[in-house]
Amino acid sequence: MVASIPERTTLNLQPIQQHVSVSFDYKVYFTNEVFKLKNHMLAQLIAGDGEQKPKKIVVVVDAGLLEFRRSLLRQIALYTKYHADILTLAGDPIKVPGGEAAKNNPKLVKQIHKLIDSSGICRHSYLIAIGGGAVLDLAGFAAATAHRGVRLIRIPTTVLGQNDSGVGVKNGINAFGKKNFLGTFAPPYAVVNDLSFLSTLSDRDWRSGIAEAVKVALIKDADFFEFIRTNSEALRRRDMDAMQQLIYRCAQLHLQHIATSGDPFEMGSSRPLDFGHWAAHKLEQLTNYSLRHGEAVAIGIALDTTYSYLLGKISRLEWQCILNTLVTLGFVLYVPELEEKLSQPEHSRSLFRGLQEFREHLGGELTLTLLQRIGQGIEVHQADLSLYKQAISLLQEFVEDRHRKSISSFLSSSVSESLT
Amino acid sequence: MVASIPERTTLNLQPIQQHVSVSFDYKVYFTNEVFKLKNHMLAQLIAGDGEQKPKKIVVVVDAGLLEFRRSLLRQIALYTKYHADILTLAGDPIKVPGGEAAKNNPKLVKQIHKLIDSSGICRHSYLIAIGGGAVLDLAGFAAATAHRGVRLIRIPTTVLGQNDSGVGVKNGINAFGKKNFLGTFAPPYAVVNDLSFLSTLSDRDWRSGIAEAVKVALIKDADFFEFIRTNSEALRRRDMDAMQQLIYRCAQLHLQHIATSGDPFEMGSSRPLDFGHWAAHKLEQLTNYSLRHGEAVAIGIALDTTYSYLLGKISRLEWQCILNTLVTLGFVLYVPELEEKLSQPEHSRSLFRGLQEFREHLGGELTLTLLQRIGQGIEVHQADLSLYKQAISLLQEFVEDRHRKSISSFLSSSVSESLT
Ligand SMILES: NC(=O)c1ccc[n+]([C@@H]2O[C@H](COP(=O)([O-])OP(=O)(O)OC[C@H]3O[C@@H](n4cnc5c(N)ncnc54)[C@H](O)[C@@H]3O)[C@@H](O)[C@H]2O)c1
Ligand SMILES: NC(=O)c1ccc[n+]([C@@H]2O[C@H](COP(=O)([O-])OP(=O)(O)OC[C@H]3O[C@@H](n4cnc5c(N)ncnc54)[C@H](O)[C@@H]3O)[C@@H](O)[C@H]2O)c1
Ligand SMILES: [Zn+2]
Ligand SMILES: [Zn+2]
Repeated sequence: MVASIPERTTLNLQPIQQHVSVSFDYKVYFTNEVFKLKNHMLAQLIAGDGEQKPKKIVVVVDAGLLEFRRSLLRQIALYTKYHADILTLAGDPIKVPGGEAAKNNPKLVKQIHKLIDSSGICRHSYLIAIGGGAVLDLAGFAAATAHRGVRLIRIPTTVLGQNDSGVGVKNGINAFGKKNFLGTFAPPYAVVNDLSFLSTLSDRDWRSGIAEAVKVALIKDADFFEFIRTNSEALRRRDMDAMQQLIYRCAQLHLQHIATSGDPFEMGSSRPLDFGHWAAHKLEQLTNYSLRHGEAVAIGIALDTTYSYLLGKISRLEWQCILNTLVTLGFVLYVPELEEKLSQPEHSRSLFRGLQEFREHLGGELTLTLLQRIGQGIEVHQADLSLYKQAISLLQEFVEDRHRKSISSFLSSSVSESLT
Repeated sequence: MVASIPERTTLNLQPIQQHVSVSFDYKVYFTNEVFKLKNHMLAQLIAGDGEQKPKKIVVVVDAGLLEFRRSLLRQIALYTKYHADILTLAGDPIKVPGGEAAKNNPKLVKQIHKLIDSSGICRHSYLIAIGGGAVLDLAGFAAATAHRGVRLIRIPTTVLGQNDSGVGVKNGINAFGKKNFLGTFAPPYAVVNDLSFLSTLSDRDWRSGIAEAVKVALIKDADFFEFIRTNSEALRRRDMDAMQQLIYRCAQLHLQHIATSGDPFEMGSSRPLDFGHWAAHKLEQLTNYSLRHGEAVAIGIALDTTYSYLLGKISRLEWQCILNTLVTLGFVLYVPELEEKLSQPEHSRSLFRGLQEFREHLGGELTLTLLQRIGQGIEVHQADLSLYKQAISLLQEFVEDRHRKSISSFLSSSVSESLT
């Protein structure tokens, strides 16, 4: 042991209180065909940084997207040449696999870091990430950790990316079998939502992103829910106009929430935007990620809506209206994994274990968002498991009921058709 | 190619402007023997988070420190048992090598992430990092990237850690042969400066941290420089009282700068606290890191002070006073690497290449801090290489001159001694 220092030397030293306040400003743009030569939006937004030109950029792109947009890399090369006074492509674009594969392979982070290093990207250069939410999360994490953060321009190419994950302040990859175990809070430099990308999405990915819009509408904006309800058929038919409006409003509500919640970097335990998400996260895991995030969120919303109804918070009419809207949008609201091991809440395959995991992920106290009415969420700090069991049964009944009705209406319409 | 979407759908969508403002508050505490059972500071600061107790903690500790504090891990175990109502040690402490070795091995980051995972640390639990600036940088990076940031309590055990690196908002590790290539901005939850740790530091590490105090005094606080000047002998003799005062004021000035500079996460191109650092970084590299950071900073300060003098910004008296103070503190102000390849500024072994690397690291325009007078820095955006060459020669002359004088004063004192 070391001889101890006379106490007088420190007793009179008051702690120093530090207060650091940081501001981030960025814009979310809306466009069509961002890499068409005559589309100046991207070049202009870089030109607008007020620094010496041309600026170095590197690009990370979703290989799943490239399958549908075979000319994209050529287009990007042409675009950067055309705007050579503003942009220089400082290294070959990196293609990364789309979907969770992007987030499950730590070597991809290293590969992006290598590109940033070899192409001399600095904190004032740009990494442009193009793809689904998963690719944006990966590229965002790599960008945020190189040089303590290089500028990130996100170009989300999925509905979820454009209305939710791509406009926010988070990134992440998976590790130790856990979703988003690694990640940071890091606002982007800018986001460019290019509607034209959405036309090639699979039906599942098209629909999946709509779940987040339903979620945010239910907890924040009754008019928006009404918009979704009246357009649910059009959205299912992949009407672009309806989708554009949905994305705009949904992105706006997410952005507003982040800006005004008072806790953009989620240092507290409350996360109202995670309505329906405790069950969703668990169901994704229980189904081995065969459910898309949005598909799981739709079920989570249906479950927490039913639970809110059983708690007497929303009316039977509201409950039915919400579930019917989800069904019309094309969501399946029941999977057998909802019922597994319910009597063993601690079991790793029990949905209820998801409550504990949700609390642990956020840290601190359990905080769930339920519905007070359509357009208004409410936070609670406990979960009544037996009532949740009832909610699961009721949800199952509802789904079977709808199924029966749709069969009988199909039958009766066939009958009436054959009669005419 | 995909059929293009009619333009009307997006033309009327205004960009959404996002503004996110985030606040971080933390305290820097001063104490002696933080893990003595009767020292409640650490337990109290965790108790004060207002959340359900006991809280999980994990510990990362500098192996170089443990060599001198063999009982530290036992002490920590006892401390956590004694305060079991507040703290639980959720996993065995990890020992990591001290110094740059901590930042050169990416496996150490993974090891810390593994500990965070296996011990169930969440965003509301604590990682306590104990050690020199390098270990704090490593542990801070690991903490900031797990669960998008777990709470970090830094216990710096070097002078540099306590007065500079440990109180700020940055972390980092080295990659691709570059210092701090990976890292984030992430304020700590709290910092505990325990003076008692400093007694076992090597003379070089004791002295090294003083360079940052000289730096911040010169650009911000003439009174503080005067304090250092008048205490330079005492500091060299390792007077704890003088050191405690130096650390307190230096930490305070660094904290104030971060809080009030308007750019705590360094998004612009200016970094006034990096006075003397462009040359320091390059000299560390050119000497293969045989120079400590602070030793290199002292040379960098001497060089930029000399350059400021040649530019006519400070007087001859000020110039001499600054260099003499550095020498009295024990710093060596000249190394041969200053002179290598000066006529080839682009050469990787030329000091002048350091100007370009400094600009690239910060991004944007070259921004150097010089001295306007003692206590006040001034930013410039160009460097006159031929004047810098003169500054290097003048610095060399000064050092040789001091050397000659100290030999002759030694001789004359020997003479006078032999005469008496
Ligand atoms: N960072 C956040 O705040 C946040 C928020 C919510 C979700 N997320 C994350 O987002 C991810 C899900 O993102 P997602 O729903 O966008 O799906 P995704 O990224 O998994 O992509 C789904 C599939 O679509 C392909 N694809 C992408 N764009 C396409 C296009 N235009 N046409 C055809 N195919 C295309 C991809 O290659 C992939 O195969 C999850 O990893 C989730 O954790 C992040
Ligand atoms: N994050 C920042 O803002 C920031 C700022 C400045 C410097 N830094 C970083 O800090 C690092 C240098 O830190 P440092 O000067 O503290 O040195 P260091 O961390 O390299 O430690 C020097 C040596 O002292 C040993 N040691 C630590 N505490 C001891 C003690 N009490 N007694 C005996 N030995 C002890 C260590 O094991 C090591 O061998 C560099 O990597 C630098 O990049 C970071
Ligand atoms: Zn979601
Ligand atoms: Zn320094």
